[in-house]
Amino acid sequence: MDEFALIAELLAPLSRGAPDAFDLTDDAALISPRAGHHLVVCKDMIVAGVHCLADDDPGLIARKLIRVNLSDLAAMGATPRAYLLGLALPKQTDEDWLRGFAGGLALDQAAFSLDLIGGDTVSTDGPFTASLTAFGEVRDGAELRRSAARPGDLVFVSGCFGDAALGLAVLKGALKGLNAPDEALLRDRYHLPRPRVGLGARLFGLVHGLIDVSDGLVADLGHLCAASKVAAEIDVPRIPLSSAARAALALDPALLEKILAGGDDYELLFTAESEAATKLAAIAVELDLPITAIGRITEGSGVTALDASGGQIDLPSTGWRHF
Amino acid sequence: MDEFALIAELLAPLSRGAPDAFDLTDDAALISPRAGHHLVVCKDMIVAGVHCLADDDPGLIARKLIRVNLSDLAAMGATPRAYLLGLALPKQTDEDWLRGFAGGLALDQAAFSLDLIGGDTVSTDGPFTASLTAFGEVRDGAELRRSAARPGDLVFVSGCFGDAALGLAVLKGALKGLNAPDEALLRDRYHLPRPRVGLGARLFGLVHGLIDVSDGLVADLGHLCAASKVAAEIDVPRIPLSSAARAALALDPALLEKILAGGDDYELLFTAESEAATKLAAIAVELDLPITAIGRITEGSGVTALDASGGQIDLPSTGWRHF
Repeated sequence: MDEFALIAELLAPLSRGAPDAFDLTDDAALISPRAGHHLVVCKDMIVAGVHCLADDDPGLIARKLIRVNLSDLAAMGATPRAYLLGLALPKQTDEDWLRGFAGGLALDQAAFSLDLIGGDTVSTDGPFTASLTAFGEVRDGAELRRSAARPGDLVFVSGCFGDAALGLAVLKGALKGLNAPDEALLRDRYHLPRPRVGLGARLFGLVHGLIDVSDGLVADLGHLCAASKVAAEIDVPRIPLSSAARAALALDPALLEKILAGGDDYELLFTAESEAATKLAAIAVELDLPITAIGRITEGSGVTALDASGGQIDLPSTGWRHF
Repeated sequence: MDEFALIAELLAPLSRGAPDAFDLTDDAALISPRAGHHLVVCKDMIVAGVHCLADDDPGLIARKLIRVNLSDLAAMGATPRAYLLGLALPKQTDEDWLRGFAGGLALDQAAFSLDLIGGDTVSTDGPFTASLTAFGEVRDGAELRRSAARPGDLVFVSGCFGDAALGLAVLKGALKGLNAPDEALLRDRYHLPRPRVGLGARLFGLVHGLIDVSDGLVADLGHLCAASKVAAEIDVPRIPLSSAARAALALDPALLEKILAGGDDYELLFTAESEAATKLAAIAVELDLPITAIGRITEGSGVTALDASGGQIDLPSTGWRHF
C-alpha cells in the first residue's frame, strides 16, 4: 500500500462523527453553524524544522498542529467543532510515522470534541508541511476580539509563561543544569500546547480585548495594543512562572528573554475592568487554571515592562533583546 | 521590509469585501451561510515542482491554487464565497514574486466573487507550498454528490479533455511539432484551469452523480462509479477534444493516454437520465460551454473504454497505461 492509500485509510475513521464529511470520499464537506451561532475559522501551518523538530514524535506533531489552531479559536471565544487537514509528505515517510500521526489526531479529536471533515494529501521534496483549518462556533455577537482593550483595563493572563521556549532550549541542548522532572515539564510544554478553549468560551461579557500568545508575551500584547489603539504596562515580577521556569531563571537570569519573547505559550491574554477580577478568580478555580493580573492598559501606544521597583526595562520595538 | 510584512501588506486589501475577516488582523474570521444555505468547504494544496513548475509565473500559480479549489466547490454544486490561504515561502522568495502572486489572487477574487478571510504565512527550507481552504454556499439539500449515479444514466462531461496534460508535455519539451497557437492554448490550459462553478450551480435537480476531473477522466469516472456502486462504459471517440489536442493526437496517437489519464482537466463529469439532455443542451448554449455525452452507467463496477467499433480498450485498474 502506498503512503497516500495508507493515510486515506488512517484518516477516514476520524470523520465518523461528521456525516456531512461523506467519509472523506467526496470533493468537499458541508458545514453550518447551529441556529444563533456563527462559524469561526482559522488556519495555521507547521513546517518540520521550523515549527517542530524533524525527529519529534509524529503523534505530538499532530496534536500540536491541532492545538495551535484551537488556541486561535479560543482567542475568539469559540468552541471547536471540526477541521480540514492538508499534508505535504516527504517521499520517505514510513508507515509507523503515519500511524503515529493519525493516532495523535485521534487523541486530540477526542480531547477537544472535533471531527476531521476533509483535506488533501500531497507529496513534497521538502520537509513535512501541514496546514490545518479549524472550525469553531460562537453565539451571534459573542465573538471576542483583540481590538477591544480600553485604557484603565487590567491585563490578565492564563497559565504560565516561558515553559515552551525553555523546553525548546532543553531539547536543543542550550539549557543544561535542571533536574529531570523540570526538564521533562518544559519539554512537554514545547511539544504539547494547552489551548485554553474552556476559558475562551467563558470570557464573553467579562473581558474587553483577547488574544492568544503564540509569538511571545510582549509581541502579542503589542499586537493587542496596536489593534486596540492603546498602550500597556506590565509588571515583569507578576508574570506567572512554573517552578521549572523559576529554576531555569535561577540558573541564568538572561533566560527571562525567553519568558517575555520566546513564544509558543498558547495562553490567553485579555484585558478587563478591575471589577471583573472576582468573577475571573472564580473561573480560575473552576477550570483549575491560574489567571493572573500582570499589568494595565493606558492611553498611548506600545508596551512598557517594569521591574520590581517600577523601573522601565528596555524592550526594543522589534522584540525583546536585552535585560 | 521582510517577506512576512510584505505579504501581510499585499494580502490585507484582498479581505476588503469581507468585514468579518477583520482586515486579517485577528486570530480567526467569522463566516456563516445565508439563511437556507449550507457552507461547502474544501482544501487543496500545491507544491512547487509537483503541482506547478517552480519557475511558473507567480500570478498563474496563485490563480491555479484558487481554481483547483473552486473546481471542488463546483463538483458539489456550490457557489464560491471566501477562502483562507496558507503559504510556506522559501527564504529566497523576492518581492516581485510576492507581488505577482498577490496580483493573481486579486484577479481571480474578482473573476469568481470571493474574498480572502484569513490564513497563515510561514517560512520553509523546502519548495513553495500553499494550502487553500475554499468556502462555498449551497441551498439546503441542493448539494450534489459523486455517489448518486444510477444504472441507465448517461455520462456527460463539460469542455474538452487532455489539454492541460498536453500543455505540461509542451512545457517540459516532451511534445514538439505543434504550431505556436496550439502550443499556447495547451500551455494556457495547464497553467489556468477553468473551474466550472457556473455549470455546477445549475445542475441540481437535473443530474445524479457529479465529480470534477482532476486525477484524469478514467480515474475520476472510476471514483464516481466506486462511490455510486455502479459501472461505466465510455465511447472514446466521443470524448471532446480541442483542435490543439486533435493536432497533437495526429502527431502521436499514443498521446491519447494523456487525454484519458493525464488529469488537471478540471472539467465536470456528471450522470443524468437521457431526458435531461435537452435541458443540458440549453445550459451549454447559455454558458457557452460544450456539454457532451460520452458514455453510460451500468450495473457492476469499474470503467470500460470502447473504441469506434465497440471493441474494448485495455484500461489497467491502476490507471491507463497502454492503448
